[in-house]
Amino acid sequence: MTDLIETLKGALSPGGVLTGEDAQAQAQSRWTRLGTPLAVLRPVSTAEVSTILKLAHAAGQPVVPWGGKTGLVDGAQADGALALSLERMNAIEDLDTAAGLMTVQAGCVLQTACEAAEALGWLLPLDLGSRGSATIGGNISTNAGGNRVLRWGMMRDMVLGLEAVLADGTVVSSMNRLVKNNAGYDLKALFVGTEGTLGVVTRAVLRLRARPASQDTAFVGVEAFDDLPRLLRRLERGLGGALSAFEVMWADFHALVTTPPARGRPPLEGRYPYYVLVESMGGEPAEDQARFERVLMGALEDGEIADAAIAKSKAEREAMWALRDDVAQTGRNAPIIAFDVSLGIGDMEAYVDGVRAAMAARWPGEASLVVFGHMGDGNLHLIAGMGSRESADLHALEDIVYRPLRAIGGSVSAEHGIGLQKREYLAWSRSGPEIALMRTLKASLDPRGILNPGKVFAA
Amino acid sequence: MTDLIETLKGALSPGGVLTGEDAQAQAQSRWTRLGTPLAVLRPVSTAEVSTILKLAHAAGQPVVPWGGKTGLVDGAQADGALALSLERMNAIEDLDTAAGLMTVQAGCVLQTACEAAEALGWLLPLDLGSRGSATIGGNISTNAGGNRVLRWGMMRDMVLGLEAVLADGTVVSSMNRLVKNNAGYDLKALFVGTEGTLGVVTRAVLRLRARPASQDTAFVGVEAFDDLPRLLRRLERGLGGALSAFEVMWADFHALVTTPPARGRPPLEGRYPYYVLVESMGGEPAEDQARFERVLMGALEDGEIADAAIAKSKAEREAMWALRDDVAQTGRNAPIIAFDVSLGIGDMEAYVDGVRAAMAARWPGEASLVVFGHMGDGNLHLIAGMGSRESADLHALEDIVYRPLRAIGGSVSAEHGIGLQKREYLAWSRSGPEIALMRTLKASLDPRGILNPGKVFAA
Repeated sequence: MTDLIETLKGALSPGGVLTGEDAQAQAQSRWTRLGTPLAVLRPVSTAEVSTILKLAHAAGQPVVPWGGKTGLVDGAQADGALALSLERMNAIEDLDTAAGLMTVQAGCVLQTACEAAEALGWLLPLDLGSRGSATIGGNISTNAGGNRVLRWGMMRDMVLGLEAVLADGTVVSSMNRLVKNNAGYDLKALFVGTEGTLGVVTRAVLRLRARPASQDTAFVGVEAFDDLPRLLRRLERGLGGALSAFEVMWADFHALVTTPPARGRPPLEGRYPYYVLVESMGGEPAEDQARFERVLMGALEDGEIADAAIAKSKAEREAMWALRDDVAQTGRNAPIIAFDVSLGIGDMEAYVDGVRAAMAARWPGEASLVVFGHMGDGNLHLIAGMGSRESADLHALEDIVYRPLRAIGGSVSAEHGIGLQKREYLAWSRSGPEIALMRTLKASLDPRGILNPGKVFAA
Repeated sequence: MTDLIETLKGALSPGGVLTGEDAQAQAQSRWTRLGTPLAVLRPVSTAEVSTILKLAHAAGQPVVPWGGKTGLVDGAQADGALALSLERMNAIEDLDTAAGLMTVQAGCVLQTACEAAEALGWLLPLDLGSRGSATIGGNISTNAGGNRVLRWGMMRDMVLGLEAVLADGTVVSSMNRLVKNNAGYDLKALFVGTEGTLGVVTRAVLRLRARPASQDTAFVGVEAFDDLPRLLRRLERGLGGALSAFEVMWADFHALVTTPPARGRPPLEGRYPYYVLVESMGGEPAEDQARFERVLMGALEDGEIADAAIAKSKAEREAMWALRDDVAQTGRNAPIIAFDVSLGIGDMEAYVDGVRAAMAARWPGEASLVVFGHMGDGNLHLIAGMGSRESADLHALEDIVYRPLRAIGGSVSAEHGIGLQKREYLAWSRSGPEIALMRTLKASLDPRGILNPGKVFAA
């Protein structure tokens, strides 16, 4: 491989190839295992990405794309591979304010893109905890979700066009700028959510939305699980398309983020088994606020919510979101394992209770489970602890969390992807013919298996 | 092929194989050329579809899927092929009113599915002129669009899961019921909008939306093209997510549908170069109506609209929609050719003027052009006549309509697909590497080329 790396040094712009300690210094993340790459490559253009892949393809050398390095499933682990970091391809190339389109390079950090859109009166609706590190390319490769999926969909729904480099270095520029385009196959889908195993995303055209003029936020307490889906439906109908977040916290999560050393304070006086952060975004601040309060009042009168605090200021809204975002408090139960699953709302209560009971039976006195998530789209995060880092315990825990999903058609990965961590559970959410078809695509687009090998399914 | 057809007669349920006159009687449509199929197959189950494809695959026999047979690009032309009609697989298998999901067989007519959802308080938002004939399977295979794309997206956005049968008869059941599911590749994309060339869709899980409680409709007159995008942005922002249609009609379209023998009457007194049918759907009838009128009043005050008629009753609303839907009036200019293109709003005025001028220059005194479309998502329909059915004239017209799209990144097919009719223009909207990648997929999934051969690109 020394020859290949020397060739790359000659082919890429200055600073394009890091090796040794310089490479290992890049392979650090508190979120994910990045392994020990042979080198870290930092192309500055699509042409350089193409050069890298052409050479790697000829050499049969694995390449692992790197974005913000804050994924949660070890999808960027690069042991023995060339890490291909998009960090120097981070420009916002164009922001078309007439059409509401942003053309951006893959290495651009999500928050940077969001702020650029906002500054010009537009909204890039993707919103997630890692917004300050995750890149647009990573968001595309993992089909990122987050807090507003129930209104604006996942990253898939924001990508109108993209450019990707195939395993052999072929550049496929599919930079469509149209909302409606049925001229031939939709090739974007090959690269959205496929975790860099079918190509390296280099650029994208993102669809922006009108920046809302109003933002109404409430923190509500709910007495019974069955009230949650009823509340959700009421908000969907009553707010007429303006509901933008429905974030549910089980009582244990709420307790954790409102108890010292956490600095959050409970927005409501009473104690409830469930709390929901509700948000609505619209176009007329005064009218929207009145409607928001009216719909919540209806829910209060009909008993779907027991109490509600409505944010009266930006500071109050930020304090509510800070509770939801203070996931780091779950570290107080360390060692912990974070899960990201998806299931029908109707199955959630029994599922969570079942996981909790099974954990308590397996690790009496040691088990902890903190639950929260984007209930509006079926996505729950479970933060589980059992006082152990043993792999036998980890496997037992995964079995407890994932196995019940099989019977109810749940997913072992709602938004984080499969990477390495969930590979052995893929078959619990997808059938044999589905996985065979994924392998057909992989073999067809990456016949030498050099693109992020071993991720999603075994090479 | 006689052997194959005899084998199929034995393998399928009674009535499963039509030949001779019975077959040809099925191959009639006023919308599309269906050709002369060897036989029309009418399976009753996914297993029967699998049997058909297994046998056809072994024999290298082309198979052409049929839905409602009202496509507009000759995508179901079945000369010398086995036509595979899904008409007997038309059941609504399940309607989950708690989760808002419908499980439906491919042959179900769109309108039937919509009405079933509505009866239970839900909305299947796909809405298009052929709703009474088009099937769910056809809507999926062509990624149907229609009148509400700006709010709820295209068919692609409504399909959570689907089942398809591959060329060799393998059944891939990917009946996901979850909004968020990143467990492996999204395989649905292989079958949505690929016009039956990669597999035969047999079933689907569709995402429903809360049925809106309010529906506000207006017909407005606009003096200048530049006012249209400003009006659209105002409505998007002011209605806070409730805007569900923004259908623009050029004056020539309006004249045609409001002049005898058309029975429509103009909703506005004055004459304007552009008219827009605007619709909003929300959750609170009285409040929504007030908001709708307020936002339109703002547009009137700021001069974006010159006049507006707001529907005061269901009958008035239906009369407005009847104007928009009375596309058949364009037949008065027969012979006509219908085009379906997509381009940026900023390019539309110059584009339409350019097409009109080029047609007038080529066919002086004979040329007619009627324009309307879903401007909210960039989709225009152009109905062109030049007093000729000669293929030289048709080619000259296609050149006039499609060629300018190349420079502005437009699409030769917004929502109708490519089929046979637009095949030679695919390369005007998609690049060489894109088409090569489409062919890679085709070769990988259908190596013998039996699935709807020659559609989208030449076999």
